[in-house]
Amino acid sequence: MNYDVIVLGGGPGGYLAAERAGHAGLSTLLIEKRALGGVCLNEGCIPSKALLYSAKLYDYARHGDAYGVTCGAVTYDHAKAVARKDKVVKTLVGGIRAQMKANHVTVAEGEGVITGRTADGITLTANGETYTGKHLILATGSLPVLPPIPGVREGYEAGFVLTNREILSLDHVPGELVIVGGGVIGLEMASYFNSVGSHVTVVEMLNKIAGPTDRDISAILQKNYEKKGVTFCLSAKVTGIGTDGVTYEADGKAHTIPADKVLLSIGRRPVTEGYGLETLGVHTERGAIVTGRDMQTSIPGVYAVGDVNGKSMLAHTAYREAEVAVNNILGKRDVMRYSAIPSVIYTNPEVGSVGETEETAAAKGLAFETVTLPMQYSGRYVAENEGGDGILKVLLDKKTRRLLGCHMICPTASEIIVSASIMVETQMRLSDLKELIFPHPTACEIIREGLFQLPDC
Amino acid sequence: MNYDVIVLGGGPGGYLAAERAGHAGLSTLLIEKRALGGVCLNEGCIPSKALLYSAKLYDYARHGDAYGVTCGAVTYDHAKAVARKDKVVKTLVGGIRAQMKANHVTVAEGEGVITGRTADGITLTANGETYTGKHLILATGSLPVLPPIPGVREGYEAGFVLTNREILSLDHVPGELVIVGGGVIGLEMASYFNSVGSHVTVVEMLNKIAGPTDRDISAILQKNYEKKGVTFCLSAKVTGIGTDGVTYEADGKAHTIPADKVLLSIGRRPVTEGYGLETLGVHTERGAIVTGRDMQTSIPGVYAVGDVNGKSMLAHTAYREAEVAVNNILGKRDVMRYSAIPSVIYTNPEVGSVGETEETAAAKGLAFETVTLPMQYSGRYVAENEGGDGILKVLLDKKTRRLLGCHMICPTASEIIVSASIMVETQMRLSDLKELIFPHPTACEIIREGLFQLPDC
Repeated sequence: MNYDVIVLGGGPGGYLAAERAGHAGLSTLLIEKRALGGVCLNEGCIPSKALLYSAKLYDYARHGDAYGVTCGAVTYDHAKAVARKDKVVKTLVGGIRAQMKANHVTVAEGEGVITGRTADGITLTANGETYTGKHLILATGSLPVLPPIPGVREGYEAGFVLTNREILSLDHVPGELVIVGGGVIGLEMASYFNSVGSHVTVVEMLNKIAGPTDRDISAILQKNYEKKGVTFCLSAKVTGIGTDGVTYEADGKAHTIPADKVLLSIGRRPVTEGYGLETLGVHTERGAIVTGRDMQTSIPGVYAVGDVNGKSMLAHTAYREAEVAVNNILGKRDVMRYSAIPSVIYTNPEVGSVGETEETAAAKGLAFETVTLPMQYSGRYVAENEGGDGILKVLLDKKTRRLLGCHMICPTASEIIVSASIMVETQMRLSDLKELIFPHPTACEIIREGLFQLPDC
Repeated sequence: MNYDVIVLGGGPGGYLAAERAGHAGLSTLLIEKRALGGVCLNEGCIPSKALLYSAKLYDYARHGDAYGVTCGAVTYDHAKAVARKDKVVKTLVGGIRAQMKANHVTVAEGEGVITGRTADGITLTANGETYTGKHLILATGSLPVLPPIPGVREGYEAGFVLTNREILSLDHVPGELVIVGGGVIGLEMASYFNSVGSHVTVVEMLNKIAGPTDRDISAILQKNYEKKGVTFCLSAKVTGIGTDGVTYEADGKAHTIPADKVLLSIGRRPVTEGYGLETLGVHTERGAIVTGRDMQTSIPGVYAVGDVNGKSMLAHTAYREAEVAVNNILGKRDVMRYSAIPSVIYTNPEVGSVGETEETAAAKGLAFETVTLPMQYSGRYVAENEGGDGILKVLLDKKTRRLLGCHMICPTASEIIVSASIMVETQMRLSDLKELIFPHPTACEIIREGLFQLPDC
């Protein structure tokens, strides 16, 4: 069968590309081998948020005393939270299925393999059928990196070592949880299992947690979780995983920590093998498909969106990349920009970031000014956070007086940071930003406070 | 003593005007007769948010079962919540005092009275001192309306009838609380006392609650609170307040409902008397000081910001008006715009609104398109809200393809709505709005979803 567009992979980049293409009237086929919604919906963003919300309520119930709320025995039912999480995922997968139908997208659930090229387009097979697409959008996503460390493979096969996929369906709360890799996934799972009763140790190779996050905010986040009982081993290199513990090197010494379960969250790699990519000769670099600003690969008519191009590995980046690809297929010029993509860590407090950090701005040789404010400058934050130590940091381009970056750590950062993204994306002048009206009292007002610490010129 | 600027009234409009003027190097005097921070900080926005947060935690503790969290006996200590609220207010008032000092603002705590005009400016007295200001910023705020209904004055004097001021410091939770006026203040207090154990009845003259709020959202909010046990009497006119109840007329019949306390929240009126305003001959209309786009009154050099001009009666409007006034005093042309001011109702779920509603847009004869989406389109909302019935509504100008308004009901609407405010204020085209990247998964993404339901042209 022939289609205008074939989308390979049904995660955020893939399903949104299919939805937009179908909506625009293109005949569209979406091929997904595992589960509609991809990692994000089935084994990532969404299920983790459902669990984290349960854990947050559990924390609230145990720590409401300062606010006048006292609870008798508080119990947490991990299995119930997991079952609810599964129900949430099922609901949302159903929603995507409905969207595909509403936009006349054909869904093939099976493994798609690229087989060649004809005058009509690119051919793929799935479930024994052959399909031809004038355009192909690759959205095959990513997989967790399993490093070549002794014991990792065996531990993974034995169910002792877990990735994001397995840990979200764990049927019990491990006593000792060792998390290798203190990035977003590692920290969110550290947050969850710390709340619900595990002793959590995070082992991180770098000298800070939270990857590219602003250094001060990383430090505040770490301090918050140390207070809650999480142990952090930084500048630590894991050298082996046994059957009951993790060995790492730090300060030139070897250490072993006991573990009931080990979460491996050191990073993810694009999926570029196993589906005939080589047939087309698509150019890759360091394991990722190379794309231009129009999301096209080295092969005309073939696009790559989402984690597989290795650019940002965030669901919302994939969404926008999908739209750029479809717009270009439709002949509407559209280019992808990566300068105003927000990122969030869903710990409690949350971390929200967009644009340059002091480190990236300095590395680029940008001349900038920085303002750091305690979140206590927000009346609502004071009203809702006893002893909160959150901060806001804004970076302004010294010459153009445009916002370069915004970083914050506070409970609702995830919902606030988009307002800073819009400021970065639109490149509004500082003097215009100061005329924007924020509702009072809110935590988001802190951005306005921050801007007013800076002179217009 | 002579000043460049004298500010009369230390609420949000007044203290921010003083801060900005002082920061710009103008010699500035702030006169406040009651409490720095005004109604907002001492008897309004901030204390209510502190109490509402305590109540929210109490609700969470009692209703966590669906999320896997079960609590034994949950107790609520209203007195403790009130004491904490007082501490929050004290902290923030201290913060304002510090800001005044940091910006070299002189604060006179006492009653200021305008006495006349000399060649040097306008003269006022306070605490027996005489002050002269080249410029005067009136920020005298508003007071609750006490209607001429039989029994209101007597009830108020007896402590049976309360306004926003008294109810926030109530030392106990009344059994039967009758709230006259279902606007923002009435609903927030209904929310609090409903959560902490009162039986609440809201009596509203109109046929809907929440004043100018979108009609569908008002209805959802009402349904949510009916489920929680609040009684609403709409199209009901209060005719008398006795010593133990409230009498109202509805459907041509008289009804009496018992009350242990009555909250009067039917509206607020600008304070234009008692401080010598008549001395200057400042023009007023329907009890409010008339101002131009530069916030100047009919008398050159005299400005009026905040509730006293009756324009929008929101703290964040006052902030911006204060900045406009100070900028004009500084000779920087600046004009006030009222088209993109967000408003929030801090119930649970919260309501966030900005710009035109269908009713106001129709009344203005605007040609517009509307999209209404269930909040269930947001994965995060589904993950965090069992059975949530929130919605988003966006209004687009049919011709210019610019956002006219955005209205939502969901738990974090207060922190989300500013992103829609920015879209309205900047008058970005729909096609550009669609290129903005929202973090996933968030509740705020619903705005992006809404925009994509609308064609670019």
